[in-house]
Amino acid sequence: MRMYEIIRKKRDGYALSETEIAYVMGKYLSGEIPDHQVSALLMAIFLKGMTDTETESLTRQMRSSGLVMDLSDIPNPRIDKHSTGGVGDKTSIVLAPLVAAAGITVPMIAGRSLGHTGGTVDKLESVPGFRTDLSVHEFNETLRRIGVSIIGQTGEIAPADKKLYTLRDVTATIDSAPLIASSIMSKKLAEGIQGLVLDVKVGSGAFMKTVNEARKLAETMVHIGDSVGVKTVAVLTEMEEPLGKTIGNSLEIKECIAALRGKWSDDISKVTLTLGAWMIHLATLVSDFTFFYSGEVYTDFIGYQDGLRELITTGAAFKKFVEMIDAQHGDPEVAFQPFRMASAKITKQILSEKEGYIQRMDAEMAGSSAMLLGAGREKTEDSIDHSAGIILNRKTGDYVMKGEQIALFHYNREEHIKEAEEVFLSGITIGPEKVKKRDPVLEVISEIAHESK
Amino acid sequence: MRMYEIIRKKRDGYALSETEIAYVMGKYLSGEIPDHQVSALLMAIFLKGMTDTETESLTRQMRSSGLVMDLSDIPNPRIDKHSTGGVGDKTSIVLAPLVAAAGITVPMIAGRSLGHTGGTVDKLESVPGFRTDLSVHEFNETLRRIGVSIIGQTGEIAPADKKLYTLRDVTATIDSAPLIASSIMSKKLAEGIQGLVLDVKVGSGAFMKTVNEARKLAETMVHIGDSVGVKTVAVLTEMEEPLGKTIGNSLEIKECIAALRGKWSDDISKVTLTLGAWMIHLATLVSDFTFFYSGEVYTDFIGYQDGLRELITTGAAFKKFVEMIDAQHGDPEVAFQPFRMASAKITKQILSEKEGYIQRMDAEMAGSSAMLLGAGREKTEDSIDHSAGIILNRKTGDYVMKGEQIALFHYNREEHIKEAEEVFLSGITIGPEKVKKRDPVLEVISEIAHESK
Repeated sequence: MRMYEIIRKKRDGYALSETEIAYVMGKYLSGEIPDHQVSALLMAIFLKGMTDTETESLTRQMRSSGLVMDLSDIPNPRIDKHSTGGVGDKTSIVLAPLVAAAGITVPMIAGRSLGHTGGTVDKLESVPGFRTDLSVHEFNETLRRIGVSIIGQTGEIAPADKKLYTLRDVTATIDSAPLIASSIMSKKLAEGIQGLVLDVKVGSGAFMKTVNEARKLAETMVHIGDSVGVKTVAVLTEMEEPLGKTIGNSLEIKECIAALRGKWSDDISKVTLTLGAWMIHLATLVSDFTFFYSGEVYTDFIGYQDGLRELITTGAAFKKFVEMIDAQHGDPEVAFQPFRMASAKITKQILSEKEGYIQRMDAEMAGSSAMLLGAGREKTEDSIDHSAGIILNRKTGDYVMKGEQIALFHYNREEHIKEAEEVFLSGITIGPEKVKKRDPVLEVISEIAHESK
Repeated sequence: MRMYEIIRKKRDGYALSETEIAYVMGKYLSGEIPDHQVSALLMAIFLKGMTDTETESLTRQMRSSGLVMDLSDIPNPRIDKHSTGGVGDKTSIVLAPLVAAAGITVPMIAGRSLGHTGGTVDKLESVPGFRTDLSVHEFNETLRRIGVSIIGQTGEIAPADKKLYTLRDVTATIDSAPLIASSIMSKKLAEGIQGLVLDVKVGSGAFMKTVNEARKLAETMVHIGDSVGVKTVAVLTEMEEPLGKTIGNSLEIKECIAALRGKWSDDISKVTLTLGAWMIHLATLVSDFTFFYSGEVYTDFIGYQDGLRELITTGAAFKKFVEMIDAQHGDPEVAFQPFRMASAKITKQILSEKEGYIQRMDAEMAGSSAMLLGAGREKTEDSIDHSAGIILNRKTGDYVMKGEQIALFHYNREEHIKEAEEVFLSGITIGPEKVKKRDPVLEVISEIAHESK
């Protein structure tokens, strides 16, 4: 087998066999195949695509390039959730302790912010002392003890994906559905889970700009998950505007704390409860799990959402969140006194330039603006400012007067403020027409028969 | 300007500006842009193509990455010929001294064999002592003194092309029309020539398998040449079967010596005289050159061919060939006693397995077979055996009896003989139908008005 022939085959639009993909991944990781041959292959994949079978093979090969966790001795069902990334998407931080409080084990390996999108790991690191770099041993131990842990990517899990991603990042081959799908799934399927709920974001702030693209990616990932025996469901959700009322790390943690205390915006509660109900449903499919809480047994989707709300109301979800902070060496008092996190030194009001309904608040622009304030990173190696970000006082559909505050910027360095404001405002459209907001949950992609709902 | 953005632009099918191409070539040659980014760009170019304007820019940038020769003080017209490569294509070795004998200066930088195709430089090196690595200074001096010199590629001419070609060679991005065109033309246009005749081979033994592909490549190259003020003409010629009666380096030199003495096969004489007449024609267009020989003035295409034949008959072309060998430190006695070149130790007859007309003698198969005998190289770094090769006693259209000799293999190592024979025979079809051979000259691509003929 020769790398040259493999590049040529893909270049000419043919599908690669699992043996060929295994050859490339193995020799690339060992350094026998150089970067410049792999980047030619990546560009050919970008432009010629991959069949579902090829994407599955690539996922399996990247997964098996590192540690695949075995959590099968944990009695609880093991279900994770993954989001393809967006702006203001703090769902994982609410959802993981919530579902864990229901009796599901959630072994979550999450990502960092990049470009206009945020990252769960960066957000959690706003909590003083919180460690997202637990060893695999500590991660295991935490999961067994409290049922939930959220850590960052580790070199032990899917190292081939990490090496490939670094190369894709400089060769303009990131935005390829099969490469995105296999990258996500290779890591998720190494977590030792039985079920996976994917939150595939759609819109200006997401990788996938249209429902059609998102559906294709979702179908590919669902297929991959199911092919290795992990029950997988994808939920397509709205990312035309930022999710919730905050963008930026410590600001989003504050919003999560409020949410876990029952004070949450409609979009966050809808997305969280939908994903949570699917996680519960998957748990019932992969084990004899019964969602029983406060003397009540919940048996259908409406019930699962009621039960999850109950876990919020009683404080059980909040308590699990505090346990998770404590277990990962964070300051648990933050949950009770959020001001213990760093605050930005400067705030600036962003005022409406005219009167009317907010027709549009572009998620990508808002995310880029927050990045310019210091909340995000342009390149992987950049550092971030945990206290910087944006509070969104008005959102799409709201009526604003001229001069009324739409948003409040939080930051410590003046450097890019003018640009941040311009970018943010360029994403806002105000007009006389009333706006009907789309339901944040757009569509569910699942190979599970609908009657099983 | 960022390499990432340039890759993305080409990936998405947009044309690059000359500034962007200059940026890539400059930073690549200086080592500031790494191989893996350039190979992603090459694959995007391969799959998305380049406009003529882009290809011209790339050619200019590669040409100006090194020395551009200035031969403007030579009084004779300076015209070169280049072939896109084939099997048994020894035309240059006959044509260069022939045209030089007519009073045209021919500064020819030629290539080496690769895969199933042969290379002029390797063939000439069959002559003991012959040096194809003259310095640019020696090359210049030889051209001024005898009017012809054939050397190999030098690091001083178009180094960016050399670096790019090495990368294309391992990333399956060789067979791209804009990349082939710019690679050829960047070197040719650095030779200080005024006119160029391109022999674009078409068929199984050529890079271009169909007339349409070849025409497109020819048009691109003609356009590039004309755009920098070098009058360029392309002649599409047959490469479905090997050219002439030999494949392999010293065997082909023997065939060239015979040709220069007037004993040549129809296909070689037709291709050589057509290309030669075009070189003479270009000479008349770029200078006040008159083709005057033996008391006669030749003024049109028929005349040019008659005049060139006369140069063969009188021995003037042969004499120029001897001068060239002598000037490049080769043993000039070889022209008179070809057996002074190394001969292979072993010969093997390849016999016809049935009776009938040879319907087809596949050039690629014959070339690959010769390569297996040792006459060619699979990879750039392989060494070759100058004495190995194939004598073709029968060709397409010939009638053969069962058991009659079609070819005679020459070789020194038994290693791949069985495979070489299988490959050669797999390219031969024999059947009862008479075969009409195509004229070896298929088409002329030129922007020069036809009345100027």
